[in-house]
Amino acid sequence: MAAKEVLKFIDEKKFHEARAILEEMNPVDIASVFEELDGSETIKLFRILPKETAAEAFAYMAPEVQQNVIAALTDKELKVVLDTLFMDDTIDMIEEMPANVVKRVLQVSDGETRSTINMLLRYEEDSAGSIMTTEFVDLKKDMTVKEAFEHIRATGVDKETIYTCYVMDQNRVLEGVVTAKDLLLSDYGKHIGDIMEDHVIFARTSDDQEQIAELFRKYDLLSLPVVDNEQRLVGIITIDDAVDVIQEENTEDFEKMAAMSPSEDTYLKTPAYVHAKKRIGWLLILMVSATLTGGIISHYEEAFNAIPLLVSFIPMLMDTGGNCGSQSATLIIRGMALGEIRLRDFFRVVFKEFKVSLLVGAALAVLNIVWIFIRYHSFPIALTVGISLFCTVCISKAIGCMLPMAAKKVKLDPAIMASPLITTIVDACSIFVFFNVALALLKI
Amino acid sequence: MAAKEVLKFIDEKKFHEARAILEEMNPVDIASVFEELDGSETIKLFRILPKETAAEAFAYMAPEVQQNVIAALTDKELKVVLDTLFMDDTIDMIEEMPANVVKRVLQVSDGETRSTINMLLRYEEDSAGSIMTTEFVDLKKDMTVKEAFEHIRATGVDKETIYTCYVMDQNRVLEGVVTAKDLLLSDYGKHIGDIMEDHVIFARTSDDQEQIAELFRKYDLLSLPVVDNEQRLVGIITIDDAVDVIQEENTEDFEKMAAMSPSEDTYLKTPAYVHAKKRIGWLLILMVSATLTGGIISHYEEAFNAIPLLVSFIPMLMDTGGNCGSQSATLIIRGMALGEIRLRDFFRVVFKEFKVSLLVGAALAVLNIVWIFIRYHSFPIALTVGISLFCTVCISKAIGCMLPMAAKKVKLDPAIMASPLITTIVDACSIFVFFNVALALLKI
Repeated sequence: MAAKEVLKFIDEKKFHEARAILEEMNPVDIASVFEELDGSETIKLFRILPKETAAEAFAYMAPEVQQNVIAALTDKELKVVLDTLFMDDTIDMIEEMPANVVKRVLQVSDGETRSTINMLLRYEEDSAGSIMTTEFVDLKKDMTVKEAFEHIRATGVDKETIYTCYVMDQNRVLEGVVTAKDLLLSDYGKHIGDIMEDHVIFARTSDDQEQIAELFRKYDLLSLPVVDNEQRLVGIITIDDAVDVIQEENTEDFEKMAAMSPSEDTYLKTPAYVHAKKRIGWLLILMVSATLTGGIISHYEEAFNAIPLLVSFIPMLMDTGGNCGSQSATLIIRGMALGEIRLRDFFRVVFKEFKVSLLVGAALAVLNIVWIFIRYHSFPIALTVGISLFCTVCISKAIGCMLPMAAKKVKLDPAIMASPLITTIVDACSIFVFFNVALALLKI
Repeated sequence: MAAKEVLKFIDEKKFHEARAILEEMNPVDIASVFEELDGSETIKLFRILPKETAAEAFAYMAPEVQQNVIAALTDKELKVVLDTLFMDDTIDMIEEMPANVVKRVLQVSDGETRSTINMLLRYEEDSAGSIMTTEFVDLKKDMTVKEAFEHIRATGVDKETIYTCYVMDQNRVLEGVVTAKDLLLSDYGKHIGDIMEDHVIFARTSDDQEQIAELFRKYDLLSLPVVDNEQRLVGIITIDDAVDVIQEENTEDFEKMAAMSPSEDTYLKTPAYVHAKKRIGWLLILMVSATLTGGIISHYEEAFNAIPLLVSFIPMLMDTGGNCGSQSATLIIRGMALGEIRLRDFFRVVFKEFKVSLLVGAALAVLNIVWIFIRYHSFPIALTVGISLFCTVCISKAIGCMLPMAAKKVKLDPAIMASPLITTIVDACSIFVFFNVALALLKI
């Protein structure tokens, strides 16, 4: 609602009224107002915002909008924005900008910022180094609580978080952490060295962001220090970025499990040809594999020439097999992603899936036997379908649970062993079983 | 490593050495040591831990382990644990315990705790009320920063977070929030009313936890106040619980998208018959639907009696259709879950999927035509498969993107419109198209 009013006021050039509403709004919501504007309005709106708010909202804007804003800002204005941005947001922005914009951003930054940016840009994509920020509160062991408070008061406004403070020695080696809670609840005279926690959970710059997210989730962290090869503290990662990583990793798994290459951008922003490129690879592989299943069918031409009804059970067998396999695969892939299932649980998992197969397979088989017998009055055909279905369920659940674990064992991403690939493998198995049972039972 | 050493010392009854290692460990890791022990060892280990650590570790234990511990504790020991637990962890625990354990927990609690527990247990499952905690820092508008600090020092140790403090009037109506950062960076003499933020993002007790998680993600929150119908502040939700909700909701989507009812427990802890029950419902529905596809095939018996080779293309057409449909469905379902795709984007999405279909469909069709012509030297058959495949890709992508959005429109969960259901629908369409194209082109 508020956003619409702002847009109306801007349309009517009532900037004063627009500003009054914007001042009451959250920077995240202000950023989404920007998304609705065109180029020239963008900069007008940006300029009527208080500087601080403008810079905060900037961090939440989509890259295209950021680029519009940067293009319209004077160097002086740009410098103010850059000074207010946290380093991790600056890096996120720079990674999305074309070279000429990056050059301008580096030009208006001061020497120290420029070298920090250059250092952070060197870390590999999706590594801890690439998502960390360099603005943290650093304390020394021999400071008192009172001195720590003074230090925070003097420098805290520019820090991404002041709730976890990091204690380093003179070589910047990480020695411990103190939370703001510890500080607030301790006597002013105490020394940091005495109240700090010296068993610190930390990450290395090269660690994968997926592991980082897992640490946040497991230990309920608010921030995580990142150290280099010499144990020197070089940055921190905060929970808001970890939450983004969690969602990113989940999206990647969803995409891989539906046989697509993961994409960097949102659905609507990705052009159709990029979508097509990300999807066609797996479609091709799976299509060729499905052709093999077709080949198996051709092999049994005599059987379905003798009893054409057999062909009509193929979709039911294939689909049920595929569904059973993808149920198992999904549970195992998700369980491993959440750390609930480990490789050493292999036999427990296989045994459990076997028991589930027996229950599910038997129920579905009996239902089919009864139904087919009533419909077609042929017990041998009913039995053929029933037995084939039972075997299909058992095979597909076995493949569905074993393949993702096997993938993990050989250090592949288990998520690629999901529904589509398993469906294709299970299809071939179910057709093979079906026609062989048919040949044996129906004496074709 | 440390965990193994502890277990070894416990085995050897060297409790002193075990304690020394445990004292250096994180409560989360201590909790996982407990998972490896049997009943009698559990309580021995629990008793050698410092009280505070023991209670902290307790919050991270699996329900079975918690139950073991509670059974072995004296009433006095149990009271200490309960007093140290935060209210949301207490509620999580109580919800998993059998009635007799709950009764004992309520008996040893004091009157106020008991009535808070009873209030929290009344909120619906997965609502904001059911995941919130009641331990927050409450301030008044007319307090000075100095008084606020004194208040935090006096009461903060028992609060789940002291980093966001909540300002209420005399009727407990929420008026604003002040962060610890604001307090630390403000002059001691300032009044809370002057530094507080009065545009507060809040939730209602009945809000769904999925919306809550979305608020945390969107606004980068560390905690969120929860108010009742009279705008009175009744609790807060902290980011660590929101992270758990995010993972829970993602798991639920993964399960629904693989045609399973979501489960509450982890894979290994769920018994086989429960697994079977959660999977068989959808399998049955999908099996019956697939039988319809079989019926369509029967209808064209003459066609494949004339040209048996046609049957061998069925798996390839069905699988490719299913894969295309589930790619589209997954992207749309995920996009909607993350708020990147809204219902008003319907036509943009359909148009984009149409463009993708043209690209992907044409590429796959041409490949098939060439390959089938080379393999079987029949251009009419090659063309039949090619045209059918092209139509299948277009139909499946259209269904794959429209069904999830339609589900959302009628307030169903889009995740149920995923791969398995779409595969089944697409199967029927692709078989229908295939045989009709065959009849028309091959003059059977």
